[in-house]
Amino acid sequence: MVIRDGGLVVDDVADPVPAFGQVLVRTLACGICGSDLHFLRHGQTMVDLGGDMGMPDVVDFDRDIYMGHEFACEVLEVGPDTSAMKPGSVVTSMPAMLTLDGVTNLAYNNDLPGGYSERMLLSAPLLLEVPNGLDPRHAALTEPMAVGIHAVHRSGIVAGEAALVIGCGPVGLAVVAALRLEGIEPIVAADLSPRRRELARVMGAHEVVDPAAEPAVEAWRRVDGRRRLVLFEAVGVPGMIDAVMRDAPRDSRLLVVGVCMEPDRITPFFGIGKELEIRFALAYAPDEFAGSLRSIAEGELDVAPLITGSVDLDGVPGAFEALAHPDEHAKILVEP
Amino acid sequence: MVIRDGGLVVDDVADPVPAFGQVLVRTLACGICGSDLHFLRHGQTMVDLGGDMGMPDVVDFDRDIYMGHEFACEVLEVGPDTSAMKPGSVVTSMPAMLTLDGVTNLAYNNDLPGGYSERMLLSAPLLLEVPNGLDPRHAALTEPMAVGIHAVHRSGIVAGEAALVIGCGPVGLAVVAALRLEGIEPIVAADLSPRRRELARVMGAHEVVDPAAEPAVEAWRRVDGRRRLVLFEAVGVPGMIDAVMRDAPRDSRLLVVGVCMEPDRITPFFGIGKELEIRFALAYAPDEFAGSLRSIAEGELDVAPLITGSVDLDGVPGAFEALAHPDEHAKILVEP
Repeated sequence: MVIRDGGLVVDDVADPVPAFGQVLVRTLACGICGSDLHFLRHGQTMVDLGGDMGMPDVVDFDRDIYMGHEFACEVLEVGPDTSAMKPGSVVTSMPAMLTLDGVTNLAYNNDLPGGYSERMLLSAPLLLEVPNGLDPRHAALTEPMAVGIHAVHRSGIVAGEAALVIGCGPVGLAVVAALRLEGIEPIVAADLSPRRRELARVMGAHEVVDPAAEPAVEAWRRVDGRRRLVLFEAVGVPGMIDAVMRDAPRDSRLLVVGVCMEPDRITPFFGIGKELEIRFALAYAPDEFAGSLRSIAEGELDVAPLITGSVDLDGVPGAFEALAHPDEHAKILVEP
Repeated sequence: MVIRDGGLVVDDVADPVPAFGQVLVRTLACGICGSDLHFLRHGQTMVDLGGDMGMPDVVDFDRDIYMGHEFACEVLEVGPDTSAMKPGSVVTSMPAMLTLDGVTNLAYNNDLPGGYSERMLLSAPLLLEVPNGLDPRHAALTEPMAVGIHAVHRSGIVAGEAALVIGCGPVGLAVVAALRLEGIEPIVAADLSPRRRELARVMGAHEVVDPAAEPAVEAWRRVDGRRRLVLFEAVGVPGMIDAVMRDAPRDSRLLVVGVCMEPDRITPFFGIGKELEIRFALAYAPDEFAGSLRSIAEGELDVAPLITGSVDLDGVPGAFEALAHPDEHAKILVEP
């Protein structure tokens, strides 16, 4: 499945052939990420903004673009002179390919198929074996849970501080689970959707709040209000950062993990008057990715409740549509 | 000198009488702060934004408003049953008054005269004696230098990191001096004004740059480019935070000490893509204020170059005008 002319198209291409350092795998499951929905709508803007920051222009929008970066796979064939897990092994990997020119993204790529494909190439040195007979559908959530783990690490939150997670989409839910794993208490989670609030409770929130009924910060005040607060912005739409800055208590930290692709308006005076701190988080480090897989396999992170649907490749465009309605779904897996 | 009907007016009022816990002082010198210019123009907005954050509405714009919060004074009279430095002592103080209702600002106040007055009341427990026979004109810079010291502390910068100070008004120059005091190297300072760049060098910048000729971050790259960078935004006009976010290197920190009173536009994607951290700083702690006075008195901070003018009370409105043209001045002292 590729992006072609701004839409999603399923087509046939030749199987890729593993070179030195690569393995050919069969995709068992691949999660659909909000970033993919963002990219479909704002891809050119993302690349342009990257260009403004001096990043190279890596995607050609006139060619097919592969996506799918939350995958678990079965090894089919190992490239020449390459040591890797033997065929039949179930693996996952950070969505990156090591090349002699450096590291390339395995998603948003014109040349390398991603997880929305029956076959893809992975980099042998990056493979992680899925342990404990873990369901590959659960192993596919290694990547999004690593995003939550990284956001929590990056926030610098420590025991004795309180957390408020604003937005309980897959990223917010991963943050809730990672906070619970760190032993943070209380974890207050806010979302307009009752279904997502319910999932937040299942993933470990001590209290959930409907921000239409009660301001999220007020809910923290009600259940705690004493511990230093770390706020996680996991919505990613314009106006959210400013609203959090307005409502945040003095001396609090805001971790922005929601990806807002549009220009946004803030009121610097809110930050100055309360000496706020804003940290932005992106992706994860290799040890956080490996730790995510280990925590899932050990049963410390139960990701099963997050999987709310499954489709084959032909079902991907419909799944993208469905994910635009947050009440229905958390994570939809593609099983090619 | 008060704000009356949105303008600056010099008028006579009765001398204040020191109560228990207070001293009556004669103002020897009081610096004009950019915040005063901000307040004259945006005072109602500042109070309204404070209200949005749940802060009480403390200033009545229908009454006269006193200002002046960077002062050195001579003690004239000690209130009843109050222990304090004896009359004739030269003192400074944080611009705050302890009352039975709590702490009140000594500036932007309808009732208590500030440093733009011949006489004012200070809180005896907050007095700091100006040591070493230090010129009271220099002691008046304790407050603005404390702002720089606090911004540097709040940034968390440590030896081995590089600093880029954007904007060399009094706040930026205080930051440069405080960075030098902390042993940070290199300190790169950017300002459009040649006069202010020259002052930045005098205050301790290792390199100065005209951002119209070379992007400020490029200047850091040219002189260092390896150490982790901490950027200080000391301009405080809309668009600066976004420009710094766009140009900042990956993983850098931005300390916002410039007070932008207007809504501002940022591009969250710049923060996310480079995992930036933004910290806002306001004012200082008591130990930072006392440390500032000590460093000035010990000769570690030479503030003399910052004093570019002196006026009496009748000269204040003209000085406010003059400070709107950054090429002319850094700090103008009022000597009532």
